[in-house]
Amino acid sequence: MLGPPCGRWRPCCRRAGVGSAWVAPLLSSSAPCKGGRSSATRIGWISDIIVVVSPENVETMKSIIEKYGHKRVTVVKGGITRHRSIFNGLKVFAENEFSDHLLQKPEVVIIHDAVRPFVEEDILSKVVMAAKEHGAAGAIRPLVSTVIACAADGCLDHSLERARYRASEMPQAFLFDIIYEAYQQCTDYDLDYGTECLHLALKYCKTNAKLIEGTADLWKVTYRRDLYAAESIIKDNLSQQVCVITDVKEVVAQVGSLLHESLQSQIKVEAMSASLSKNDSHLQNILSGHCYNFVCVNDKKCAIQETQQLVDVLEKSNIPLLYPVVLILVHLDVSENISFSIGMEELTRIKKFARELKKKNILVYGLLIQYKDQLLLQETVNSAAALIMALIKDRNPELIGQLLVA
Amino acid sequence: MLGPPCGRWRPCCRRAGVGSAWVAPLLSSSAPCKGGRSSATRIGWISDIIVVVSPENVETMKSIIEKYGHKRVTVVKGGITRHRSIFNGLKVFAENEFSDHLLQKPEVVIIHDAVRPFVEEDILSKVVMAAKEHGAAGAIRPLVSTVIACAADGCLDHSLERARYRASEMPQAFLFDIIYEAYQQCTDYDLDYGTECLHLALKYCKTNAKLIEGTADLWKVTYRRDLYAAESIIKDNLSQQVCVITDVKEVVAQVGSLLHESLQSQIKVEAMSASLSKNDSHLQNILSGHCYNFVCVNDKKCAIQETQQLVDVLEKSNIPLLYPVVLILVHLDVSENISFSIGMEELTRIKKFARELKKKNILVYGLLIQYKDQLLLQETVNSAAALIMALIKDRNPELIGQLLVA
Repeated sequence: MLGPPCGRWRPCCRRAGVGSAWVAPLLSSSAPCKGGRSSATRIGWISDIIVVVSPENVETMKSIIEKYGHKRVTVVKGGITRHRSIFNGLKVFAENEFSDHLLQKPEVVIIHDAVRPFVEEDILSKVVMAAKEHGAAGAIRPLVSTVIACAADGCLDHSLERARYRASEMPQAFLFDIIYEAYQQCTDYDLDYGTECLHLALKYCKTNAKLIEGTADLWKVTYRRDLYAAESIIKDNLSQQVCVITDVKEVVAQVGSLLHESLQSQIKVEAMSASLSKNDSHLQNILSGHCYNFVCVNDKKCAIQETQQLVDVLEKSNIPLLYPVVLILVHLDVSENISFSIGMEELTRIKKFARELKKKNILVYGLLIQYKDQLLLQETVNSAAALIMALIKDRNPELIGQLLVA
Repeated sequence: MLGPPCGRWRPCCRRAGVGSAWVAPLLSSSAPCKGGRSSATRIGWISDIIVVVSPENVETMKSIIEKYGHKRVTVVKGGITRHRSIFNGLKVFAENEFSDHLLQKPEVVIIHDAVRPFVEEDILSKVVMAAKEHGAAGAIRPLVSTVIACAADGCLDHSLERARYRASEMPQAFLFDIIYEAYQQCTDYDLDYGTECLHLALKYCKTNAKLIEGTADLWKVTYRRDLYAAESIIKDNLSQQVCVITDVKEVVAQVGSLLHESLQSQIKVEAMSASLSKNDSHLQNILSGHCYNFVCVNDKKCAIQETQQLVDVLEKSNIPLLYPVVLILVHLDVSENISFSIGMEELTRIKKFARELKKKNILVYGLLIQYKDQLLLQETVNSAAALIMALIKDRNPELIGQLLVA
């Protein structure tokens, strides 16, 4: 199964105060291994994933899980506060009330917030290891601002020495028995007004959590600006690699090779021949390496037929399910005719093709390179590379089907 | 003078640890007024702006101030810590050492961080008023994460009750005599390790600062994701208004009016006639309202000459100095010819024109609307409006000079 890559952004999980925390328990039998791609559903050593959502969002969450083919996931109804939601999640391993079937109780449980979508496997692994040793562990970050206490009159009471304090972030991990015991002993006041799981483990189980320095990626997607930031980070992640597909014709191959060189300084480039077969191992490797960008160089005016095979392969893969794939059709014009012109029928054809593929989450753009003069070719190719990079980075769905000119 | 609008983003001011704080003193003689555009250089009641920068950046800062024509600004060399930098800034009003001429001592001084570029006039005004009454005042925000204290062994010591504490943000304001007295009494330890000005006023002058609830805009641009967020916010701010310019010919006016309607649901639209004069008061109003987006509808193939007058006016204004201006040349094709085609010479011409204007920070894009069928016209115009919005929102400099087709 192809799970979502690092940092899938799920705005639907955001709901202030309802504790969109997920609980990802870990079985002691399989040790965490480093180096894999992050995101809980991708990490083999996590045995179950409990997603706690507000009651009105349960069906939406279930349909998301089905659409993306997520495995190991149990959806649980949240409570009216963060702690009540997390407690509901934990009960799945101990009480029959909250799930169709009781899940096997894990040794260690990870608690995380869905509003921190960019969590890496490394920090998950670190908090789990520390929890095994200390009973509890949590990620921390330096404070960005000084923390102050307010007096009743709205004036400064005192300020804290910033160096002595840390921001407590997620993920946190616990021996299941410790955190479950802590939640069972909680008062209603704790459940209604508390926010810190580490505090409960300390208060009710005398467990001083190990604190692990986290990375800046653990920030909470809270404000509109955070959505902007998250979108840009995801687009950045999708713009790391491009596959350039050319056929064997000499002139096409030459331009393909120049384009390759020009792009290489900005992005990882994979080259491929247009005569690909579905089982081509090179193509399969590229797809499994999560390449979301394809450039097809052709000397035909509107090479829709030529790219159909690639489109078929993409459709069959899960790649466009997760994120929009960019497909740039480069038309290499080798005609001697100086007064080259683009007809409206041709523009309409590529637009129609692009509209169809947009439904499948493939964004198609056209790009014209005029091959007139060997001397000018390098400059034209550089301009084409700049346009390709701009299209890949923006992934603008409004510009699909347009024919740009290098 | 046209100062930078709300939220000018100055990455050059960012330098961890060197306290890129600016000190914006306020003369008691002019009361703060609400409702103006924010940013210190735009607020009339601020008499002097002291920009404290690290010694190696003083020349860069001076050239920025000159380039953008900022007034009331004095550049001061920072120290090796935040407090030492702020102290240097304050000395400009009290000691001759740091400036060519001693500035007149203000009643109230505002201290701000350049890494919080989106500060609004409203909060500046509030902290100043509160400082007049209480001697000191500062903006606060709710804590995003729980704050915890670490023990020496790297484990949790205790966690703070989140509701009792606040994040101390900037801006802060002080009676000048209080904050200057506090800095004069500071120990070297304070100057080297402290970060909180409110703390100094409390410790050395027994002044309990009034705390003012700030908006989310006060966040610190700290990480790469914050740069992404800041860029998106600025682009959003620039995409609030568009000016559509059409000439009086019936068919052009009709399309202009349809475009107006279609854009109106997404953006504020101003309409203007193409027969504008330089002193046109409507145009001057639009320019002074900080419109950064212009759409010129024309039935000529490449209406470069027709837009020259607008370009001249834009160049003479300070508008493109601050932010890139988007100029979209809409070519309305009214020919009956179905096999309409775009010649390469035409594409080359618009590209060349766009490259020239890019040097002046004006981003030119072409857009073709085919006027074939009254029934299809509405659909085409909607598609044109979507493309216009995409171009305005993205402001992509790589796509300039391209001719898009609606």
